[in-house]
Amino acid sequence: MPKLSMHEITLIFLSLAVLLAVARVFGELARRFNQPAVMGEIMAGLLLGPTMAGTFFPHALSFLLPTPGTQLFMSGFTAIAAALFLLVAGMEVDLARVLRQGRTASTVSIAGIVFPFAVGYLSAWYFPHLLGYEGGVHQTLYALFFATAISISALPVIAKTLMDLDYYHTDIGMIIITSAILDDLAGWIIFSVILGTMGINGEFSPSTTILLTILFAAGMLTVGRWGLNRILPWIMAHASWPGGVLGFVVSLALAGAAFTEWIGIHAVFGSFITGVALGDSAHMRKRTKETLEQFVSFIFAPLFFVSIGLQVDFVKNFDPVLTFLVLTIAMVGKVAGCGLGAMAAGLPPRESWAIGFGMNSRGAMEIILALLAMQYGLIGERMFVALVIMALVTSIASGPVMQLILRRKKNRQVSDYMDSRVCLNPLKGKTQREAIDEFARVMGGIIRQSPETIARAVTDRERIAPTGLGFGVAIPHARLSGISAPVIGIGLTKEGVDFNAPDDKPAHLLFFILTPKQDASAQVEILSEISRIAKNAELCNRIKSAESYTEILGLIKTKEI
Amino acid sequence: MPKLSMHEITLIFLSLAVLLAVARVFGELARRFNQPAVMGEIMAGLLLGPTMAGTFFPHALSFLLPTPGTQLFMSGFTAIAAALFLLVAGMEVDLARVLRQGRTASTVSIAGIVFPFAVGYLSAWYFPHLLGYEGGVHQTLYALFFATAISISALPVIAKTLMDLDYYHTDIGMIIITSAILDDLAGWIIFSVILGTMGINGEFSPSTTILLTILFAAGMLTVGRWGLNRILPWIMAHASWPGGVLGFVVSLALAGAAFTEWIGIHAVFGSFITGVALGDSAHMRKRTKETLEQFVSFIFAPLFFVSIGLQVDFVKNFDPVLTFLVLTIAMVGKVAGCGLGAMAAGLPPRESWAIGFGMNSRGAMEIILALLAMQYGLIGERMFVALVIMALVTSIASGPVMQLILRRKKNRQVSDYMDSRVCLNPLKGKTQREAIDEFARVMGGIIRQSPETIARAVTDRERIAPTGLGFGVAIPHARLSGISAPVIGIGLTKEGVDFNAPDDKPAHLLFFILTPKQDASAQVEILSEISRIAKNAELCNRIKSAESYTEILGLIKTKEI
Repeated sequence: MPKLSMHEITLIFLSLAVLLAVARVFGELARRFNQPAVMGEIMAGLLLGPTMAGTFFPHALSFLLPTPGTQLFMSGFTAIAAALFLLVAGMEVDLARVLRQGRTASTVSIAGIVFPFAVGYLSAWYFPHLLGYEGGVHQTLYALFFATAISISALPVIAKTLMDLDYYHTDIGMIIITSAILDDLAGWIIFSVILGTMGINGEFSPSTTILLTILFAAGMLTVGRWGLNRILPWIMAHASWPGGVLGFVVSLALAGAAFTEWIGIHAVFGSFITGVALGDSAHMRKRTKETLEQFVSFIFAPLFFVSIGLQVDFVKNFDPVLTFLVLTIAMVGKVAGCGLGAMAAGLPPRESWAIGFGMNSRGAMEIILALLAMQYGLIGERMFVALVIMALVTSIASGPVMQLILRRKKNRQVSDYMDSRVCLNPLKGKTQREAIDEFARVMGGIIRQSPETIARAVTDRERIAPTGLGFGVAIPHARLSGISAPVIGIGLTKEGVDFNAPDDKPAHLLFFILTPKQDASAQVEILSEISRIAKNAELCNRIKSAESYTEILGLIKTKEI
Repeated sequence: MPKLSMHEITLIFLSLAVLLAVARVFGELARRFNQPAVMGEIMAGLLLGPTMAGTFFPHALSFLLPTPGTQLFMSGFTAIAAALFLLVAGMEVDLARVLRQGRTASTVSIAGIVFPFAVGYLSAWYFPHLLGYEGGVHQTLYALFFATAISISALPVIAKTLMDLDYYHTDIGMIIITSAILDDLAGWIIFSVILGTMGINGEFSPSTTILLTILFAAGMLTVGRWGLNRILPWIMAHASWPGGVLGFVVSLALAGAAFTEWIGIHAVFGSFITGVALGDSAHMRKRTKETLEQFVSFIFAPLFFVSIGLQVDFVKNFDPVLTFLVLTIAMVGKVAGCGLGAMAAGLPPRESWAIGFGMNSRGAMEIILALLAMQYGLIGERMFVALVIMALVTSIASGPVMQLILRRKKNRQVSDYMDSRVCLNPLKGKTQREAIDEFARVMGGIIRQSPETIARAVTDRERIAPTGLGFGVAIPHARLSGISAPVIGIGLTKEGVDFNAPDDKPAHLLFFILTPKQDASAQVEILSEISRIAKNAELCNRIKSAESYTEILGLIKTKEI
């Protein structure tokens, strides 16, 4: 049996380690700037691929994947990574909810796909060469593909944005999610039909491929869904836990991927539909979904997205005119389509435009579609680069624009406002008075206010009602004018300070919280998060025995021990 | 860039789906017979590989991995799977506990490696050809390898056996685990030295390889461990959760694997040592470990073990004399070494022999070692088959023999004794009397006792103290002579039956439990598990609204919703 040599195995381990590490670091940086991780992961690919490293250090690249064997391996590995990513994306689709949503969602989703589709199709039909048409395929197919590419949405990015804005479980949030799901499904089915019409595989005639695709999707979402809902409880009852379900889900998704690849459309469509059918079952345990989702999102997905940048030189193939046109058509089509659809369904203008911009983000789905289209020769490298940039720009824009239109703020988190300079360990004060003064002195230097003002505000608040929560936790706090953002300090004391807790126990863990006077909700959000922490006795004990500020920050952020 | 063709990608998806599904099914079957899952996974490989399918259906095999490209891919994929499996195995090692354990553990582990090593070395040195020596390498190296192969243990199998017997947290359990860890570490280091001496890689001289190996292991377990313990909290404090840690751990393990492969020993050693250094940190969250462990144990590990069977024809290469000799030398060396070591450390004979048989199981580690040795040309296919069989037989034997020596029984689980025929949904009885009679009628037919006897025993018990637990759950039960195993029935009723619960609420979920008269602990174990279920209100609600017996069984087994 042919095998990779020991040297090639070494290279594969090393390449995967480097690609994963760099992708994750850039993913984290992207999130630091409130951007989706996929942004950073693709950037990492540009850095390691021909765009940057290839231009400046041609040898660095050949260090990563120098032999045909390692390159063959990577092409297989990224195919699996993409299929598993789409499995997880599919599992997030809540079909039952889609079916429950009424007229509004269907109006928005139909307008949200028909309008941009029409705009896209007509532009590409009348101005093919302006829009990157390079021959090779029939012009109708090219126009159809371009129309599809600007019509799909990106469920994961949209869901993440809505959750960040605390808008996920509102009516508008649900309309956006439902419409995005419908548009995604429609988009992928149209794309499959295009691939089928091209007859790429040759194993089947185009019409057979289309027929099989529709049969597969319809079958999986009806009979398949019904069957899975019965098989899952059986597996959990009779096989080991959670191994039975995990193995079943992954092998089923791989089989679905093999089937769709075999009938001549892409593997990712099979695993996506399998994911939709599985995710819908009430018998999929939350824990199993989480395990799959975490491993796939943080190991497979970064490796897949970083590999995109390895394939194309983004600088050489960047065409500013084409990119600008694609971006404009995509944004106008989607925002106008969804916005007008929502207004037609009776929603007020502000919400309607928010829906338009929400649906406008393309994210990872668009990039996968573009990559496949390039691999099948449907589009050239210039169009690929333009579509990737369009996907990134629309995703970046959607969060801030929605925030602006809806005047929403992100939910505030304790860990965002903690300051390493205010970690008093140990806190020296023995009485309430001494403890508050000690905090006020340190805080005063940081927010540039007199310690007396701070101490007075906190003491006044303490007089209204004591802030000892019980369980050894106290949260002296006050709203202060003259600061623009909350500041949170932490104090640990072995001896304990009495804060008149309901259980009469002294406080060993103190959160000292100052929030801006004009921002009432900041205080509410922060205090409710801290009271959740206080109720978790094990977590509090770990915080109390932590050795460094970093360790405390990690415990508060993850809330796990 | 060379790529796998669309046809090859289809084949890879299909092969992985088939291999994973068959491996998991056989893994589950093995567990059904109280055997480690790896047993079944290897069997699945024999079935799909040249041993069975290859002999009877030569075309079936070429269906799985027919092209050089797919075979190249699989060799890379299984290398990664093995490295990740060893990462997880390494993370289970609790170094701190190893260092805490005193004289006994070190005596057992030293005797447990020196004695079998000496027996193995001398046998292979004096009777090389009887023990499968086929030339190619120096006889000393061969004897060293054989000695190592029969000296190592299998931590995961041993830990699983001890947990099954509820013996994990006892002194004996800890001695066994600690000794197994030390023997494993020693075994892998010796094996690395052998590979280094062979100078397989050629990049370094043998002595440099050995030096680098020792430096790597010692460095990772001291400075590396110290550094990781500081880096992990920083990642959790500053990166996204749990993606930051997951990505870091996997890329570090891959880098460690690349390093050890580069210096001329195998990749698995690098990821194993990385795992040991990581697993030891108090900052590795339980949830992160679980996610890694579940995905690797149930997706990567089955794919790796099933692929072992694809490589060799086990029937053609089965040498009964060699297998018998290997098995005898391995068992005598390990059982006698550990048993005598334990007695020398002052333990009573019965416990000492239990330790001997506990340490005797070789499991997956032995198989990985044998596979590597075969790939490096250290051993032939006959010896490989003999070592795999030895690993399987010693693992299978260890549980039952320990159980016999220590007269321990496996902890009983509710799901093992539930009977689908006694799932009364809905239960018709409205009063306690009627409900008990209804259960007794159905149960009587199954255990062949008169319903009156059963009802009387349960009613008598009910009179001593009511069995309503509150939260809508009741557990009418009795100990009965004439049955050999517990039987558990389930009843659901919308109307509720009064069982005098402390909260005065009627029971909607009834467990009807009969246990053998002579077996007091069976009742205790079953009742304590049910009271844990009763306290989980969400779980009980899901059970009450379950639609089938299978669903109820799944909920009780997984205890998750």
